[in-house]
Amino acid sequence: MLGLMQDWPLLVHKVLDHAATYAGDKEIVTRGIEGPIRRTNWQAVHERSRRLAKALARRGIKSGDRLATLAWNTERHLESWYGITGAGGVYHTLNPRLFPEQLIYIANHAEDRMIFVDLTFVPILEKLQAELKTVETYVILTDAAHMPQTGLRNAIAYEELLKEADDDFAWVTLDENAACGLCYTSGTTGNPKGVLYSHRSNVLHAMAVLGADVLALSNADTVLPIVPMFHANAWSLSFSAPMTGTKMVMPGAKLDGESVYNLLEDEQVTMSAAVPTVWLMLLQHMEANNLKLSTLKRVAIGGSACPPSMIEKFERNYGVEVMHAWGMTELSPVGTIGSLLARDRLRPYDEQLKIKSKQGRPIFGVEMKILDDNGKELPRDGKAFGHLVVRGPAISKGYFKGEGGNVLDHEGFFDTGDVATLDADGYMQITDRAKDVIKSGGEWISSIDIENIAVGHPAVAIAAVIGIAHPKWDERPLLIVQLKPGAEATREDLLKFLEGKIAKWWMPDDVAFVDAIPVGPTGKIQKLSLRDVFKSHVLPGAAGGAGKAAE
Amino acid sequence: MLGLMQDWPLLVHKVLDHAATYAGDKEIVTRGIEGPIRRTNWQAVHERSRRLAKALARRGIKSGDRLATLAWNTERHLESWYGITGAGGVYHTLNPRLFPEQLIYIANHAEDRMIFVDLTFVPILEKLQAELKTVETYVILTDAAHMPQTGLRNAIAYEELLKEADDDFAWVTLDENAACGLCYTSGTTGNPKGVLYSHRSNVLHAMAVLGADVLALSNADTVLPIVPMFHANAWSLSFSAPMTGTKMVMPGAKLDGESVYNLLEDEQVTMSAAVPTVWLMLLQHMEANNLKLSTLKRVAIGGSACPPSMIEKFERNYGVEVMHAWGMTELSPVGTIGSLLARDRLRPYDEQLKIKSKQGRPIFGVEMKILDDNGKELPRDGKAFGHLVVRGPAISKGYFKGEGGNVLDHEGFFDTGDVATLDADGYMQITDRAKDVIKSGGEWISSIDIENIAVGHPAVAIAAVIGIAHPKWDERPLLIVQLKPGAEATREDLLKFLEGKIAKWWMPDDVAFVDAIPVGPTGKIQKLSLRDVFKSHVLPGAAGGAGKAAE
Repeated sequence: MLGLMQDWPLLVHKVLDHAATYAGDKEIVTRGIEGPIRRTNWQAVHERSRRLAKALARRGIKSGDRLATLAWNTERHLESWYGITGAGGVYHTLNPRLFPEQLIYIANHAEDRMIFVDLTFVPILEKLQAELKTVETYVILTDAAHMPQTGLRNAIAYEELLKEADDDFAWVTLDENAACGLCYTSGTTGNPKGVLYSHRSNVLHAMAVLGADVLALSNADTVLPIVPMFHANAWSLSFSAPMTGTKMVMPGAKLDGESVYNLLEDEQVTMSAAVPTVWLMLLQHMEANNLKLSTLKRVAIGGSACPPSMIEKFERNYGVEVMHAWGMTELSPVGTIGSLLARDRLRPYDEQLKIKSKQGRPIFGVEMKILDDNGKELPRDGKAFGHLVVRGPAISKGYFKGEGGNVLDHEGFFDTGDVATLDADGYMQITDRAKDVIKSGGEWISSIDIENIAVGHPAVAIAAVIGIAHPKWDERPLLIVQLKPGAEATREDLLKFLEGKIAKWWMPDDVAFVDAIPVGPTGKIQKLSLRDVFKSHVLPGAAGGAGKAAE
Repeated sequence: MLGLMQDWPLLVHKVLDHAATYAGDKEIVTRGIEGPIRRTNWQAVHERSRRLAKALARRGIKSGDRLATLAWNTERHLESWYGITGAGGVYHTLNPRLFPEQLIYIANHAEDRMIFVDLTFVPILEKLQAELKTVETYVILTDAAHMPQTGLRNAIAYEELLKEADDDFAWVTLDENAACGLCYTSGTTGNPKGVLYSHRSNVLHAMAVLGADVLALSNADTVLPIVPMFHANAWSLSFSAPMTGTKMVMPGAKLDGESVYNLLEDEQVTMSAAVPTVWLMLLQHMEANNLKLSTLKRVAIGGSACPPSMIEKFERNYGVEVMHAWGMTELSPVGTIGSLLARDRLRPYDEQLKIKSKQGRPIFGVEMKILDDNGKELPRDGKAFGHLVVRGPAISKGYFKGEGGNVLDHEGFFDTGDVATLDADGYMQITDRAKDVIKSGGEWISSIDIENIAVGHPAVAIAAVIGIAHPKWDERPLLIVQLKPGAEATREDLLKFLEGKIAKWWMPDDVAFVDAIPVGPTGKIQKLSLRDVFKSHVLPGAAGGAGKAAE
């Protein structure tokens, strides 16, 4: 027997309708790519998005068509998302940080019919367009006055495209499970794979993220999304902010410390979200210039592990509460967030800091457990670590066009590729990537745990731990160290430093010193490259295995 | 083209799973009907709910079966909801305030197979059971030790029923649109009609209600739901509290000022929700005993219009923020909530109070507009008032078994039966019930507006305004007044008092004095009865219409 409630599909347009009706004059402020600050509001964004949707429909865009964006966070990028989906299309976010060949692969794989592109990225696309077979039209996200000389096919200024239609347009009617957004993830192996969000998943995720224990965005907030719309769905802020009528501040292309600081202060931002590297630039700028923050109350930090010192600095020096978050493109993307349980708020600060340095607790709609290699569930004791698997309405069940095959286990859980602990309260801590964990005698050793301790040594700049083949134990840890300029430390110093801080059987069998540990664009240590460099390394007392390791 | 997100139906059990996993030791405290305070937690509620579901399944309860509850807010009542729905059944809340013949009609119409009943209400059911044809089993919400002597069919103590099964039970798998809960509304005419909630509507509604601008419940809160589970779905608190792992305090049968005050203080409650009459008892108790509130931060007030003096008292004397809410059983029930916009928080307090005395702004998922008699939308200017119609995923599209026929208009909006204004910011104010509005010369006069001003006269205890037939204007207002004991005022005094405060053409054509204005159990003036008493009243200068009015 079915309930008798209305059929009201969860569509992202309804979020924008809500914002326009109930927070119509709330501002969206953008640092324009052209230079000046621009100001608009939810009512105008709503009107322009409908205008765009109508123009796209007139140009033959149909339900399910993919239209790409290669753009910074601006109001025009936001309108593009709503205009594209309002015409029934799928916004496809291209990440400008990818290599040209990846961009080509992705745009062709997605069969993008248009690309909405910021002035910044026009030169990139000019070089690639010969290979972008499906793209019919390039929409430059600017007005006629700033339109560059460009050889891009059928190039048109965004503001000119908007003039092709009025806003008398009814959003295309769709099933709530219809495709809404597309974002590719690039694994370390194989081709990038497309995560295909539905209208339903985007709306449900935004609702969950608004909870008081998650981002807690309110109408009284002003949010600065520094996390880019071109990566991981901008942590849902493009949907959750209008859902509650929040003022938005869009940083455009300038993410340096000074630019971010000025926006925070000028626009009285209360909440923001970014990766650690961006916050580092902000903190350095504030420290160098002895600045304070007058309105910022909360920041979400994610994308990679956040150093406890950063959390402490924000909270103690600037009175800004830090929420460490964890997510993935495949999770829409928020999985966990580090808001403390009521009782943990009563602990001494350094205990709080320890908990806050974990990745936080799952939001509603993210079921989570950890499994051993045989798929058996491990205890939630904060100690056992295993494959982190997740299930929920805003989590991938597969990739676009079936790439990667079936990605769910027999219970419908998705394997995140991370290795983590869970404790009885639900706090999750990533201990490793599954491919980096070291398997020694059937047991697991966390490379990240050892690295985190090793960088605590005063002479160490960066530390990496990888598994080296071992004739008896299968794998044993090798600690690789890049010393600080001018600093000195021996193999024995470092091993001594680790003693007592980790289990005896976790102790690295060897230490190697290098001039530079390779680090990727998002600050992650490139272990694939390290493993290649050290593939012939022979651990002390493991000579019998050298041949094996050298294969 | 569909998105590629997981099929994860929105089922209320998932809410309880979330609470048990991530807030397992968070307490649910109940003032037991038997007397003592009982303490349990989400993990135990989860375990006992599964036990109940298994016991019910063994007793032959199948998907879609209706099982009624006639009970106060207790942890056992909460477990009953989850146990019933976990077995695939539908919790059906019976309201003990209804007349016996209504209860009989409703239970028979719903075809309830069981009734879970509190000790308090056993005597009522004993009198009715001969007429409750479909009820096979009565579950008394107590343990063996407190089991009364009763002639109820197959009576069993709740705790004994739980012993019939262990908790090794997988929730019944259901479509998210499956029926979940049933609650009858009793209109002024016709038989009560059943609102049939789905799992989806209950989950979506709870998610919306958790927003920072709505109830903003957090893990750090302790919530005391005084709004009964037997009426209007307890404002979603049975779902929204576990969704975020909030501690709950269940007041049982004692809702007097002293009992409520003691629970608020003893259990360090931070948030509560109730109707104005309950809050009045609490405020009187605190004033009489010179008490303060040490932990309460926010209260939601709904069910009927809240006097501004009550809002001011809570906020100024006790530092408790008031959110005036409006809803209906058909809306799951929350439609609007009176959290202020950021800019309105900067206004002088009396202006804030004026806004807070309105019914608030729509939550996400409640589309709202006002229509004239011809279905034409009226402006959102805070002045025009019309039929308030709503649309959304947690709003009725019809009643159980088709009673009342089609209730949606051609655009899918549900008519609330209320007349209201909406302003540009979305603040809604109820000005009347549609059946009470006075239609004079094709224009509408709000009876409530005039009543609210009239009770401001120092001699007036209660004021009611009804429409009286008029030969020229169709209807004209009659002001009916019950004076305060010993107070005096003339017809002319009262009309003079209204002058300048309302439009000239709104001025009542006559004033009638009565000893007592009839008021229903929830404090609402019974206008149907007044209209009957005054059906032959002849307005001054309207003698030609007397015959018509007297028909």
